[in-house]
Amino acid sequence: MYRPQIKVIDCSIRDGGLVNDSKFSFETVKNVYRAVCAAGVDYVEIGYRNSRTHFSPEQFGPWRFCDEDLLRKLVEGVDNPKGTKLAVMQDAHKASADDMGLKAESVVDMVRVATYVKDVDKAIKLANTAHDKGYETAINIMAVSHALDRELDEALQQIESETKAIACYIVDSFGALYSEDIDYLVHKFQRFLKTKQVGIHCHNQQQLAYANSIEAIIKNVNYIDGTLYGLGRAAGNCPLELLMGFLKNPKFDIRPVLDVIEKTILPLRKEMMWGYSIPYMVSGLLNMHPLEAMDLVELPEGDPRRIGFVEFYEKLSGGEQDLA
Amino acid sequence: MYRPQIKVIDCSIRDGGLVNDSKFSFETVKNVYRAVCAAGVDYVEIGYRNSRTHFSPEQFGPWRFCDEDLLRKLVEGVDNPKGTKLAVMQDAHKASADDMGLKAESVVDMVRVATYVKDVDKAIKLANTAHDKGYETAINIMAVSHALDRELDEALQQIESETKAIACYIVDSFGALYSEDIDYLVHKFQRFLKTKQVGIHCHNQQQLAYANSIEAIIKNVNYIDGTLYGLGRAAGNCPLELLMGFLKNPKFDIRPVLDVIEKTILPLRKEMMWGYSIPYMVSGLLNMHPLEAMDLVELPEGDPRRIGFVEFYEKLSGGEQDLA
Repeated sequence: MYRPQIKVIDCSIRDGGLVNDSKFSFETVKNVYRAVCAAGVDYVEIGYRNSRTHFSPEQFGPWRFCDEDLLRKLVEGVDNPKGTKLAVMQDAHKASADDMGLKAESVVDMVRVATYVKDVDKAIKLANTAHDKGYETAINIMAVSHALDRELDEALQQIESETKAIACYIVDSFGALYSEDIDYLVHKFQRFLKTKQVGIHCHNQQQLAYANSIEAIIKNVNYIDGTLYGLGRAAGNCPLELLMGFLKNPKFDIRPVLDVIEKTILPLRKEMMWGYSIPYMVSGLLNMHPLEAMDLVELPEGDPRRIGFVEFYEKLSGGEQDLA
Repeated sequence: MYRPQIKVIDCSIRDGGLVNDSKFSFETVKNVYRAVCAAGVDYVEIGYRNSRTHFSPEQFGPWRFCDEDLLRKLVEGVDNPKGTKLAVMQDAHKASADDMGLKAESVVDMVRVATYVKDVDKAIKLANTAHDKGYETAINIMAVSHALDRELDEALQQIESETKAIACYIVDSFGALYSEDIDYLVHKFQRFLKTKQVGIHCHNQQQLAYANSIEAIIKNVNYIDGTLYGLGRAAGNCPLELLMGFLKNPKFDIRPVLDVIEKTILPLRKEMMWGYSIPYMVSGLLNMHPLEAMDLVELPEGDPRRIGFVEFYEKLSGGEQDLA
């Protein structure tokens, strides 16, 4: 039995872009786009539409900007039998409303705005502008495991009353949430967002990304993020292939997903690192940003700055002076 | 908050022995034993006490037999401040009651008998003999995702009425169970096993081993298996380090666990393979034994017998002629 309201979003290239500064080759992204369309996934988020004033084009690859020309080349000639929609993400504090042209002149279908709770006013402005230009919109609340209830409640209230976003996402950026936290947050989001769908985007620091996505689905969350083989920042995301196996929507075909993982995604592991490891597990357990863990994991073997797991754990868990 | 009734069993060497025919070096096992004792884990299952008539000592290493002399050497000189108990496993159909001497002459504390539902009478006989010789006993029901309800119910009824086992485990050998299956099985086990604890042993084919263990804990399961960095057959087991992070028992110290993972377990990856991969995910999704996936994963790159992921999926999911 499947729930037709469920919408799966593949964000392999967008979240994976946080590992390699969005420097995927055009061929890699085209392979991903072609596979995800063939598999019948509902949306594919292909990168960021962020501002060149915030990101240097020398440092960041083309999928940080997703120029319209590039996206047209991407979709050109690709069979899209199930009508997979194209999405881009804008960071609330690093994008401008001007970065989006009119939907009538764009191949983009949906704009997802990523925001911290504190930047929700910026996010609402971006989302509303995109909506007025003709796009579907959604808002992703990052680092939700650090949000204070009072501030999160107010942000949700604003999103409900001030936007036309179709969905608002719980984003477990730190991979810190357990199933009971998912239940708590889903219930809260549903309570405030009477006219919108709730979404979920998980990270795998504690190997809970897929399980927490299932938990959210059981609690009637309908917008679910996944990535191919979990490709994404730090320990990565909810693997799309697992999600498609769990959801029984007959329109899905898992085979193009397995194929592109084998031929396009796994070879990326020569130059990109993602997936479970002890430093990520420690940062997830301690509900911390994975940046310090990423620094450690990325040091080559033998590098003198590479500290042991125990030292890393002690640094993160007891690094601050006790407060009293 | 923690639940003092919860008992954690590390079975890294025992389940890992299914990957390398129980051929760990003595030093490796001693390091694991020392770390698990220092961490305050409740039990450590160090291998099988199986029969040499069923396993050739030429093909299998010493941890498939766990001779008393070997175990004495293992525990000798190791600080065991929290009283970590030593366990061995016997396979119902591959061990003999004679393989266990008297507890009074052994360093073993617990005998766990692993069985398929069909062999439950053999398991009960083994467990009862071990109990009469003075050991704690438990029974692990393997491949529970293939068990027919009627047969499983009868087996549980027998275990309840005919044994003194302290616990009976749900073993998700194929990594096929979802949280709702865990709920269903835990409820069933609890219904039959009025005088015993329920245990859980998960495999990670679908990245659900840890999440399903948490789900079982929430449903009042108290005997929980984990392994260091998930070491174990196929995609491995519930990672012990994650389990210890979730359980807040103040007697636990996670640091020796992190240390032995870094220095002893991760180096094993040069010669042993375990952990998530697409062939395992496919076999878990299809609720199948991982043997075919293990065969595929272990073939070296370039081997002509190595088939693609899609071909593997089609072989496993559609290999049989339709029945009518």
